[in-house]
Amino acid sequence: MTTWVYSFRKATNQTKQLLGGKGLGLAEMTKIGLPVPPGFIITTKTCLSYLDEKKFPQKMWDQVLTDLREIEQETGKSFGNPLNPLLVSVRSGAVVSMPGMMDTILNLGLNKNTLSGLIKKTSNERFAFDAYRRFIQMFANIVMNVPLERFETFLDKERKRLNIKDDTQFSARDLQKIINQYLVIYQEETKQKFPQEPLEQLKAAIKAVFSSWNNKRAIDYRNFNKIPHNLGTAVNIQTMVFGNMGKTSGTGVAFTRSPATGEKKLYGEFLVNAQGEDVVAGIRTPRPIQELEKVWPKIFKQIINVAHTLEQHYRETQDLEFTIEEGKLWILQTRTGKRTAEAAVNIAYDMVKEGLINKKEALVRIDPEQIGQLLHTQIDPKAKVRVIAKGLAASPGAATGTVVFTADEAEEKGKAGQRVILVRPETSPDDVHGVLQAQGVLTARGGMTSHAAVVARGLGKPCVSGCESIDINLKKKQFTTNSQTVKSGSVITINGSTGEIITGKVPMIEPKISLKMKTILNWADKTARLAVWANADYPRDATCAREFGAQGIGLCRTEHMFMEQERLPFVQAMILAESEKERQKPLAKIAQFQKKDFIGIFKVMAGLPVIIRLIDPPLHEFLPGQEEVKKKLTNSKNKSKRAHWEKMLNAIEKMAESNPMLGLRGCRLGIAMPDIIRMQTRAIIEAALLVRKAGQPVKFKIMVPLVGTLEELKFVKKEILIEAKRVFDKRGEQINFEIGTMIELPRAALVADKIAQEAQFFSFGTNDLTQTTLGISRDDAEGKFLTLYEDLGIIDVSPFKTIDQAGVGQLISLGVRKGRKTKKNLSIGICGEHGGDPESITFCHKIGLNYVSCSPYRVPVARMAAAQAVIKEEGI
Amino acid sequence: MTTWVYSFRKATNQTKQLLGGKGLGLAEMTKIGLPVPPGFIITTKTCLSYLDEKKFPQKMWDQVLTDLREIEQETGKSFGNPLNPLLVSVRSGAVVSMPGMMDTILNLGLNKNTLSGLIKKTSNERFAFDAYRRFIQMFANIVMNVPLERFETFLDKERKRLNIKDDTQFSARDLQKIINQYLVIYQEETKQKFPQEPLEQLKAAIKAVFSSWNNKRAIDYRNFNKIPHNLGTAVNIQTMVFGNMGKTSGTGVAFTRSPATGEKKLYGEFLVNAQGEDVVAGIRTPRPIQELEKVWPKIFKQIINVAHTLEQHYRETQDLEFTIEEGKLWILQTRTGKRTAEAAVNIAYDMVKEGLINKKEALVRIDPEQIGQLLHTQIDPKAKVRVIAKGLAASPGAATGTVVFTADEAEEKGKAGQRVILVRPETSPDDVHGVLQAQGVLTARGGMTSHAAVVARGLGKPCVSGCESIDINLKKKQFTTNSQTVKSGSVITINGSTGEIITGKVPMIEPKISLKMKTILNWADKTARLAVWANADYPRDATCAREFGAQGIGLCRTEHMFMEQERLPFVQAMILAESEKERQKPLAKIAQFQKKDFIGIFKVMAGLPVIIRLIDPPLHEFLPGQEEVKKKLTNSKNKSKRAHWEKMLNAIEKMAESNPMLGLRGCRLGIAMPDIIRMQTRAIIEAALLVRKAGQPVKFKIMVPLVGTLEELKFVKKEILIEAKRVFDKRGEQINFEIGTMIELPRAALVADKIAQEAQFFSFGTNDLTQTTLGISRDDAEGKFLTLYEDLGIIDVSPFKTIDQAGVGQLISLGVRKGRKTKKNLSIGICGEHGGDPESITFCHKIGLNYVSCSPYRVPVARMAAAQAVIKEEGI
Repeated sequence: MTTWVYSFRKATNQTKQLLGGKGLGLAEMTKIGLPVPPGFIITTKTCLSYLDEKKFPQKMWDQVLTDLREIEQETGKSFGNPLNPLLVSVRSGAVVSMPGMMDTILNLGLNKNTLSGLIKKTSNERFAFDAYRRFIQMFANIVMNVPLERFETFLDKERKRLNIKDDTQFSARDLQKIINQYLVIYQEETKQKFPQEPLEQLKAAIKAVFSSWNNKRAIDYRNFNKIPHNLGTAVNIQTMVFGNMGKTSGTGVAFTRSPATGEKKLYGEFLVNAQGEDVVAGIRTPRPIQELEKVWPKIFKQIINVAHTLEQHYRETQDLEFTIEEGKLWILQTRTGKRTAEAAVNIAYDMVKEGLINKKEALVRIDPEQIGQLLHTQIDPKAKVRVIAKGLAASPGAATGTVVFTADEAEEKGKAGQRVILVRPETSPDDVHGVLQAQGVLTARGGMTSHAAVVARGLGKPCVSGCESIDINLKKKQFTTNSQTVKSGSVITINGSTGEIITGKVPMIEPKISLKMKTILNWADKTARLAVWANADYPRDATCAREFGAQGIGLCRTEHMFMEQERLPFVQAMILAESEKERQKPLAKIAQFQKKDFIGIFKVMAGLPVIIRLIDPPLHEFLPGQEEVKKKLTNSKNKSKRAHWEKMLNAIEKMAESNPMLGLRGCRLGIAMPDIIRMQTRAIIEAALLVRKAGQPVKFKIMVPLVGTLEELKFVKKEILIEAKRVFDKRGEQINFEIGTMIELPRAALVADKIAQEAQFFSFGTNDLTQTTLGISRDDAEGKFLTLYEDLGIIDVSPFKTIDQAGVGQLISLGVRKGRKTKKNLSIGICGEHGGDPESITFCHKIGLNYVSCSPYRVPVARMAAAQAVIKEEGI
Repeated sequence: MTTWVYSFRKATNQTKQLLGGKGLGLAEMTKIGLPVPPGFIITTKTCLSYLDEKKFPQKMWDQVLTDLREIEQETGKSFGNPLNPLLVSVRSGAVVSMPGMMDTILNLGLNKNTLSGLIKKTSNERFAFDAYRRFIQMFANIVMNVPLERFETFLDKERKRLNIKDDTQFSARDLQKIINQYLVIYQEETKQKFPQEPLEQLKAAIKAVFSSWNNKRAIDYRNFNKIPHNLGTAVNIQTMVFGNMGKTSGTGVAFTRSPATGEKKLYGEFLVNAQGEDVVAGIRTPRPIQELEKVWPKIFKQIINVAHTLEQHYRETQDLEFTIEEGKLWILQTRTGKRTAEAAVNIAYDMVKEGLINKKEALVRIDPEQIGQLLHTQIDPKAKVRVIAKGLAASPGAATGTVVFTADEAEEKGKAGQRVILVRPETSPDDVHGVLQAQGVLTARGGMTSHAAVVARGLGKPCVSGCESIDINLKKKQFTTNSQTVKSGSVITINGSTGEIITGKVPMIEPKISLKMKTILNWADKTARLAVWANADYPRDATCAREFGAQGIGLCRTEHMFMEQERLPFVQAMILAESEKERQKPLAKIAQFQKKDFIGIFKVMAGLPVIIRLIDPPLHEFLPGQEEVKKKLTNSKNKSKRAHWEKMLNAIEKMAESNPMLGLRGCRLGIAMPDIIRMQTRAIIEAALLVRKAGQPVKFKIMVPLVGTLEELKFVKKEILIEAKRVFDKRGEQINFEIGTMIELPRAALVADKIAQEAQFFSFGTNDLTQTTLGISRDDAEGKFLTLYEDLGIIDVSPFKTIDQAGVGQLISLGVRKGRKTKKNLSIGICGEHGGDPESITFCHKIGLNYVSCSPYRVPVARMAAAQAVIKEEGI
């Protein structure tokens, strides 16, 4: 015979799948002897059967009656008994929590007779009438689909008529009248009398809760949260207890540890003479739970003990609900306590030290993204803020400052110690000196890979880009949003984690890397199989990366070195050169700069591997805008200057591409101008030799970008090796290094077996690979049709945030398999922004990559995610 | 014992691989009894052994001597015999013809003694001296590496001294002196005397010919033509015969059928008293071979017989060389005759009718590209032209006309019956009326997919695009190249098959589709497994496609319908609309236009399948250029016009994308604006219902572009079906149609199994698929770095011409496999430009596609290629 119904007492060996989360918690608490009001659970399986057959399965109702009888025996109360009536709550309890999505009915069992019994028993007429009123309303609405407004409209009228602000002001007599009118409304709407038979009430209530699994609200919620629709909900039927039965009653919630800091101390709040919903409603201000010690010291001690028992049982922080009915403590719910990032770290660490959990358990309990939050300044979640615009969350963290509209002003004020936010239509290499001195950057145009976004992320500064709803007027030195005008000098706050622009100063939570977090990250490193490297272009990035625990540099983008203001003139001269000969002088100058940077990076990394990528973006990115040059040309009177600008304009027009992302860039550049490959090779090797001579170990690899064919790699490799030999011969010493390739085009993944013949390592450039595999230009899609796609449910998450496993992931797996078919031990990593995304990291782990490389600020996140990938695979 | 040497007589069972092409021909001719001067072949294997070991293999020289003795017996002449000297030629003969790449030595066997013997025997002192002079020069140069200039410089001096223009004017005495000086030069350069022993001469000559396999010229040639380097060359040693021994001697070449028209008639030319090289040198004008009948009727008859024998033997047109030595005919070479496209078709047809070959053989003998040539006007290959610039070969065919610089002028003059070439920096939809009236289009900017190129290909008009070496000055109405200035009104010729711009009028060959060609194409259709469909956007294209034998329309690009001048204002109004409501009016207008076009196409196709693709390009392609609008805005004084242009400018700026190819286009457009999907669906279905009502069958399919995920297709499909139902309901009738998808993104191929759940057919869009798989924007690469890649040997052929099988092809195969895993009989085709490329068609055949779709003018090419793919697979 199928068991459709389990009493709390007998349910403990069953699964959460069958009992739902709430029911299982009640059963567990009953089992370990905590004071839980008696009750029983109708299983999720029953719900599914009911939804399927449109009727209760055979024998179910008999089982309900049996369990009900048990409750009656245990409590001495009974259903419909006017002297000592049993009242129950009927609540849904799904496997996955769906707060507020399904229905609850309280005070079931009340009718004309039991009402009078309740009045007598409690000597509290008002309480009893109120309970009945609520029951009628809930039952009518949930079971009979009577619109709530019918009741609310009437109640409103009564409030006005009696000039009442707070429902507690209704007298018992008022409530009695209201009940009468409620019963009339009920009859009008349902053409039936309100059911007086408690068993009939119960039967209807159970059916209604079952059916609520498929109400629109619940379906939408499940769709949105990707919860399967075939789970069903359990129904919990539990003896009512009342916290609003006078001065010796009360209700409250408690966390076993502080959800804010993780401190091991009871945390929560309570109300005397109130029911749970009063705490939620916020009409009365609850008191901190510590005060309970003074009010009811015995109860407080009981709760402390309950908390301890629960933590020992669950080995996890609990969030519990309790009610005190005339001096007796009842526990109504327990669940895992939500917590802040800081608390999560501290609790995990503390519980290991307490011996409650082991290190692996500690590691899986921390959401890697929470670690990420701790590394950036955050807006205090409690703060009330006024959001005036929203752009792309281009670089995480929040910053407050005075608005300035030019890089020069940002630099000037920043150096003078003022906190400024640089606001620009978009930024260019000419603005970097301003970005360096600003607290954060806000741009009206440009996507997640725009200049402002990339530079800010590199510097760990907050940035909101592509905020198209602000209209910047540089002449007037102000920007306007739909709602207001912000002038230069006003204070704003930008939240680069959400893209929000906020007026004024806002309370912040400063980043904190505690000793406990460091310890946990070290545990993570010992568990992880994937190494975590960082993308770092400058010595300062490398320093930051090492501080955050990076074990190498997976991507050093040499072009960022080209972008610095003092270097651009030489880069432009290189581009404008009309012959190889003319190109030599600026190239030599750039080589000097590059060499200096490489020396700095090699020193910081002290022998850890550094992968240096040859120049990647199209050369026209290093030239000024066409409009700007046209203006300069028009304004120049000097003949040689005019010639310069004409040449520049000519070059810009010649280099203009309709789809620069798919144009002359990556290794194509070096193949068109092998000079550049040679210059970069020379700078790298000379730097390495110098650092080694100074007594420090150096390990570097050269990476060729945007390779699509074996022949391209062969060409570039040959140039590198020729130049390397030239340097070695000249200096009379050698140094080992590897040459590898980005795999960032679908074709590269498809022919990875061929490419591996010449590559000593692979690094998947998942940003570009995503763009080409999906045919989506990130700059043209994010915040635009990709957002629409998310809204329409066409995609779950931006493929630029989390690797699109079905498409891009398939290519990556293929590339790994093919690459290792040719070279069994080929070192393979990824260096796109996915390298810092936990879900993508799990994927990288699964397919056997050697490392992920991400921005320095994501390194701790990645270390956690890499460890969790192992634990998820192996189990705890 | 290895046989290193085969006499012509004994060689016939050996392979071409061993004997080389020339040697095998000589052996075959000897076998079938044709008069071939006796000789023998040293095998390619000998060459490889020699190159490896740096010496002749053992016994080889003995075998040479044996065969030499045989020749001596047969001819009665002998090596070094002053009375009747044997002279031989030593020629290379590779497996794959490498004309002019390797070395030949004639008259070997001459020395002081045999020279006098030759004089006596021929009574022709001058002839003998000249033969000796030539031999010394060839031997010195080829065997001993004496630079040719040494001899030429001296000869020049002599010519000047003796005031001689033509070497035939040298007297015997002159030549004798020259020989003496040659021998001095030889000794100076080689520090040796000129070898007098014929066997020593022979040994050295054989070695030199072997070695010439690896000279730079030959290696470069093989690299360029992808001929393997490990084949080696055979050496042919053959008795010399002389056509320059007086009035009864001569030499000539003959084709067994006309290489120009294929007419079955001996074709060729000859010279009396001349050697082969004299025909080539062009000093004397050869006479048509028909005149030989009058000169030497017996010989002529002999040659006719030889031709017949050879055709019967080879079952193929032959190109033969003959020499008449004192009245005796000798055949020196035979090979397959090269022929024009027209001849190829006629010969193949005729030979089938003659019973010489079967239909399959006929089909494989015609290069599909030759068929393509016949469909376009070509420049007469014999014409001398002056090329002044070169651009991209954007639309094949050639055209001559007067240069005009505006579409309006092109229209005006064109309508007045004048032939004009429209020259523009680039074209836009505003220029289409001019293109329609022009003979051809020349643009300075834009690639193979630029507006001009696409429109011209669609119209079958020649176009040269992206001709960056011309500098157009619209004000002065002229363009300049490096070499000259061309003014409006001048006549130029453009060759859209080669990209060449030519001054003046040029003789042309007009296109011709003969009955024979039609018959052969019908044979092709019966053989082919792949169906050939066409890409056609207008009724006129569809008509053309059917004339060329298309069995359906694989791609009807609706956006071209949007581009027409009269429609653009409505399309722009649709784009500028700020609400769905405002959008309805222009949409309704566009629907009318579209419906009209669809009716036209459906009528033409008369029940053959028509695949209509929903709008694909980004909407900003339908808006004018930013500069233009800015100008209009500045010049407008009317307030409402200013408002219009401001709105337009705003839209342009808002829609600007950094990589439009990867932006808001394809199905993304329809998802963002479902109105457009509905409008197009309505237009298509209403057109279909109307045509059917008029009694004509209609078969159509709707194709969704740029799908990357199943969810996108689901979304669009749902919109189509809703609208279809609306139309059906309204009109009270239904019509069946299919909904399918382009597979043109790597991701689509990767998840083709999923997409096939909702798609009723697939069409690979190989243009876009190539762009994304390789990460190459065609417009930014062709004529730019892709050309560099071809030059550097990084790629063999542009992936936009022939499918990149290793990369893109791998994805296509995967997509086919996955698609058919879900739907076993899924109809799959391609509709990129590769659909008209023979090599790509072979690939499509191999992987089991159902059809290829290409531009109407490529249909016959594709039909041939599709048949050949079957024959290549099955054998003849």
